This record gives sequence, C-alpha cells and structure tokens, in this order.
Amino acid sequence: MSWKSTEKENNILAQRIGDLEKRTVRVSWISDIIVVVSPENIETMKSIIEKYGHKRVTVVKGGITRHRSIFNGLKVFAENQSSNRLLQKPEVVIIHDAVRPFVEEDILLKVVMAAKEHGAAGAIRPLVSTVIASGEDGCLDHSLERARYRASEMPQAFLFDIIYQAYQQCTDHDLDYGTECLHLALKYCKTNAKLVEGTADLWKVTYKRDLYAAESIIKDSLSQQICIITDVKEAVVQAGFLLHESLKNQVKVEAISISLSKNDSHLQNIFSGECYNFLCINDKEYATEEIQKLVDMLEKSNVPLLYPVVLILVHLNISENISFSIGLEELTKIKKFAREVKKKNILVYGLLIQYKDHFPLQETVNSAAALTMALIKDRNPELIGQLLVA
Amino acid sequence: MSWKSTEKENNILAQRIGDLEKRTVRVSWISDIIVVVSPENIETMKSIIEKYGHKRVTVVKGGITRHRSIFNGLKVFAENQSSNRLLQKPEVVIIHDAVRPFVEEDILLKVVMAAKEHGAAGAIRPLVSTVIASGEDGCLDHSLERARYRASEMPQAFLFDIIYQAYQQCTDHDLDYGTECLHLALKYCKTNAKLVEGTADLWKVTYKRDLYAAESIIKDSLSQQICIITDVKEAVVQAGFLLHESLKNQVKVEAISISLSKNDSHLQNIFSGECYNFLCINDKEYATEEIQKLVDMLEKSNVPLLYPVVLILVHLNISENISFSIGLEELTKIKKFAREVKKKNILVYGLLIQYKDHFPLQETVNSAAALTMALIKDRNPELIGQLLVA
Repeated sequence: MSWKSTEKENNILAQRIGDLEKRTVRVSWISDIIVVVSPENIETMKSIIEKYGHKRVTVVKGGITRHRSIFNGLKVFAENQSSNRLLQKPEVVIIHDAVRPFVEEDILLKVVMAAKEHGAAGAIRPLVSTVIASGEDGCLDHSLERARYRASEMPQAFLFDIIYQAYQQCTDHDLDYGTECLHLALKYCKTNAKLVEGTADLWKVTYKRDLYAAESIIKDSLSQQICIITDVKEAVVQAGFLLHESLKNQVKVEAISISLSKNDSHLQNIFSGECYNFLCINDKEYATEEIQKLVDMLEKSNVPLLYPVVLILVHLNISENISFSIGLEELTKIKKFAREVKKKNILVYGLLIQYKDHFPLQETVNSAAALTMALIKDRNPELIGQLLVA
Repeated sequence: MSWKSTEKENNILAQRIGDLEKRTVRVSWISDIIVVVSPENIETMKSIIEKYGHKRVTVVKGGITRHRSIFNGLKVFAENQSSNRLLQKPEVVIIHDAVRPFVEEDILLKVVMAAKEHGAAGAIRPLVSTVIASGEDGCLDHSLERARYRASEMPQAFLFDIIYQAYQQCTDHDLDYGTECLHLALKYCKTNAKLVEGTADLWKVTYKRDLYAAESIIKDSLSQQICIITDVKEAVVQAGFLLHESLKNQVKVEAISISLSKNDSHLQNIFSGECYNFLCINDKEYATEEIQKLVDMLEKSNVPLLYPVVLILVHLNISENISFSIGLEELTKIKKFAREVKKKNILVYGLLIQYKDHFPLQETVNSAAALTMALIKDRNPELIGQLLVA
C-alpha cells in the first residue's frame, strides 16, 4: 500500500476485519478461522480479536510470500507446532483474502459444495481489461481474447487433503513465485477446480480509492435503518409520526413510544439488533437523565462496539415564540455531552424542530428528515454536539 | 451499470466528463476532442458541452460495439459525413475511455511520443488477479503466470494512418467481438505497440463502488486549498491569523485582508484560480451586503460552474456575553440565504467563534479548524445554512 496510513484508514482496516468476522459468525458451519498475519502485526491482530470478542479464531505467523503464508495456515490442522495447538482437521477448507471483506455467505457455500464434489473450487469474475503479453522489447507480443479468460478471485475451497498434499509437494519456486492455489491443486493433485461465478463485491481492497469505496459501502449499509424513540406525550408522539412518514421512503423506520425512565424490553430488543441509528424526540432540555439512560443502554448492548452509532436528539420548540433563541450555554452543554459519549463510539447530534400553530410545517418536517438522512449517511465525528435547525 | 441512476450519480457523471475536458483543456497540444456517445445520449452530451463552455469538442454517434464506436470517431478525420464536418487529419490520435476520468497529462504525452516512434502505444498495469482459462465443463483448464501478463488499459495512441487502416480492414467479427485496439494495429498493420506503465489512477469507473471512490477522490482534490478572507478590522484579522495557523498543517491556506465593499483585483485573481473553498470572517450579521457581493464575484468567476464551492461564513462573538444567544429569526435568515445561493452551486455554512477575554480560546480555534475541514471535505448540500458552533 503506497499511502501513509492515517487513523481513519486504520479504523477502516479494523472495521474490515471485524466485518469479515461478523459475517463468519453468522456462518455457523465454519468451525475454525485461521488468520495468517505478518510477524510484526500479530500483537495488533490479537488485540483486535480480544477487543471485539471474536471466537473460533487462531492467529498464525505468515511467511514471506502468499503461498508460504497459506501453507503456514494449513499446517495448524496437520502438524503439532510449538506456537499453536493442533486443530481438528476439517473435510473442507476455504482460503480467503482479508482484503475482500464483503464476501457473502452464498458464495462461501457455493465454493464449499463444489469443492466437496470436485476437490477444489474458486470464485471467478469477468475480466475488466484485456490481458496482454509483452515481448522482451516492451512491445505487445499478443493479446488474449477477453471472453475466453476469467479473473480468479477468492474465496476458494478445497478438500483439505488435496490442498495440503499440493502444498507439501510444492517446490521452492512455487512457494516463492506462485500466486494461484487452484494451480497447485491442478499441478500436484490433478484436480481441475470447479469455477464459480462470484459477485462484484469480491473485489480486492487494494488502493486508497478502494478504502474510500469500502468506507462508503459500510456507511451505506449502516444507514439502511433508523429507530425513532419518543416518550409517550402526545405532541412528541405526533412529531415522531410526521418524521416517520417523511423518512419511510428513504430508509426502514422502526418507531417506538416508551417512557424512557422505565426499563423497556422492546427497546432492549432493538438495541441488540442491527440498527445503528436512533432518533430520540423529546420536548425537554438536551442531555437529560433520560438521554443518559438511553446512552447507557446502547453502550451495554454492544451495538457501538464495531461501528459508530448515530443518536440524533430531536428537540421540539412548541413554544410558538417567534423570537425564541438558543443560549450559548445550552449549546456548550450538548457539545460537551457529545464529546463524552463519543468515547463510547456513539455520535450525538442535536436537531431543532420549530412549531407553528401547534404543528411543525411540512417543510420543516421534510428538512428534519433530510438532515437526519445526511447525518446518518455521513456519520461525521467532527459534527457531533452541533445543533442543526430543521 | 447495474444500479438505478440517481441525481447524485448523474452529477458525478457530469463532473467526470467535465474533469476530463478540463484536463484536456490544460493539454493545449490536443487539437480536437471527439466524444462518441450512444444515440440516446447525444442531446444530453451536447447540453453538457454547452453548459460548461467546452471547446474543441465534436460529438459523434456511437455504434453498437466498442470497436464500431471508435471507428465512427475516427471517420470524422477521414470521411465527409452529413452529420459532422470533416476535421483536419491529425498525425497521432489518442483513444481513451470516459470511464477513466483521472488520466494525467504525463501518460498522455508518453503514449503519444511512443506512438510517434512505434506507430502504436498503450498504457498497461500489473494484473490484480490471476487470469485463468476455463474448460467446457466450467472447470479450470489452466492459469496464466501472473508476472508474464499485463492488463491493457487506456489511453492508447496511434499514428492516425495505422489505426484507421486497421479499422478499414477489420472483419465484422472483429468489429462485433473484439475489444483491443492494440490487437487490430498488430493484426492488420503488423505494428507491435509500445507498452507504457500507467498509474493506478487509470482504473475504470465500472461499479457503484467506483463511483463512491471517484466522488471521494474529487472531494479530496477539491479540499486541498482554502482561502481565508477577512475585512481589515483588527479583531477579524487576528481571528483569521489564528485560524490560518490551525489550518495550515492540513491544507494549503491563502489569506487576504480586504475591504469587501471595494473591488479588489487580488480577490478576483483568487476567484479565477483553483480554489474551491472560502472562509469569510466578519464581526457583523450574516447575509449582509458584503457577503452578497462576495457571492456575486464568485459566481462571475465561473469557479462554481464545474464543482460546488464551499463558503463558510465565520461570525465572531466578541461580545464576551456568557448568556449570548442566537435568535431563530437569524438562523432562518441564513438558511434562506444559503438555499438561494445553492442555486449558483455555492454551499454556504455558518460558523460561530466565541471570544473570551478578547481572544478565542485555542480549543475553540482548533474546533473551528476541524469543523472547517469537515465541511470542505464533505461538501454536504443538506447542511447548508446551518450555524455550527466551534
């Protein structure tokens, strides 16, 4: 990678690994996950695994080439080594790249089933560019007919005995210069791998632009759902309803009215789900005890562990006072609160909705919905604690 | 492309084309630009060209395949056609894809010089994945040694006579199923193209994730520079200096102190440059006559034509009043102003800096700088007219 790693990029990396693990947690039929890491990153990886409470993971020291690293990973199932305990040998192994974090269970299942039948299988994609061979003079020698070839991607799956035997028979030249596991299975075990069409999601996060894309994809997936929480007062419930109506065309909305001062099991269910965005409507001051309670419940739910959670505090100004004003003290208070809560990976923003003749104007509601969507799509940590006006 | 085109994506497309044209404007040695477009998009393309005032551009109707489209483009230099006037035949033509908008002049020059010497030249990149051939049973037939092959990318350049002759000799099969211009030059004119190493920027904007990446790259390049404009009052100049100090590690900062009520040629020079971000500090109300004047000057400069310009209005509260408050009327006024100005592709945000003992605290200045960076990096149109508090 050719750029200076920033905090942002490290976060994406951690999220990527987390995302991968989270997907495999869902894939319950995977018994062990071997993560092969370069020696200098082993401690970082172990701390990530501990931080996120990942199970079934064994960390293995990588080699100086791709094939040597994979071989090290496979040995965990076959050879007693000082650094790792021997794991039970599986029938099938999947080999995957951490730089392809968006792999779906469907393709994992497909390559595994194909490997059971054929001994080996791998995901493929159409070629994006024509492939050419250059002569020694740096000029075109010949070009390949694009339609006849495919890009070999990951994941790939193998009967363990086949791929392990292939690696045992490898020459040093294979281990140092080869890149393709399917090729080894063919060369040493006469196994023609089944090729399975993969989706575009399997692309390799390689360049800085790919990190940008990965970040956008993650943010996109986090902003698919929002939960509107209102207390049980009529005006507040009504505002929640109006916002619900305006948001529901853009995002999946779940709405609940509860008394925040009581423990509510429904709320706890939502907190243990897949929702990363909460809009909390009240007609009181910001940063009250109830909000603090909400934050505590969110924290306990582990939802903010992997991804930042957005919490928008909607304040209704039903005073109808045209000369209504917001004090700087109040603004400073919510900023301070937001900074505290950010340490728990919860991003708090304020949103003010002004009433007119006992109702917010439709224009105001739409503006509030648009601001809400912008906040949950951007998840911008610099804007926390700001009070936006709908 | 497999997603529903949204307004946002269309904007990126327009920016891409604009960006491409802008780069080629800078490339003064290019005499004509032929844009080959599918019949249904010709009117859209013509209106884009008119809107952005692009010169040297001829729009040509595309064919049903890549090669037929390129051939149509080349004919403009060789055959009198009813729909297009005959252009003067060039010595060298560059063939490029609009989906590779980040092409640099350097690689254009390299392929042209190589084409002059060798008759043909094209950019290449290392393969990201191994390339494999599949048998009729959908299983692996063989894999190619990755190091021996390259991905053929664009731009490519040719002596006009060579590539035109090649296309004239093409079979229908070539025109319908072929994808590689270098291959035609080799097959029909015995010209072995010189292969030139390109940069990673040449990637094809193909999938939705590539649009995300392209958007981030454009935003990144737009947020490299900021101009701080202050009037000549001491307190304001001082605030500008403090912000300058805090911003200069993250971004190139240009600072000028002028009386906005006068016409200033220095300001006009900046407006005709490459700066897309302005921070205007004053101690008066928002949306005053001076700000309107600034907006008018910006609009006249054509800077906002291609990309949205960010204008942050910094308001200093030097009143030292702890119970200072912001009226809703004031907030509504700046929102309304921002909505008007957005029509000119200028995104206006408010930023309040509170003073204490005749100075803003360093913490406040740093917060203002962080908010400024967040605003110019995100260029979020939904947040316009909001007043952020540093």
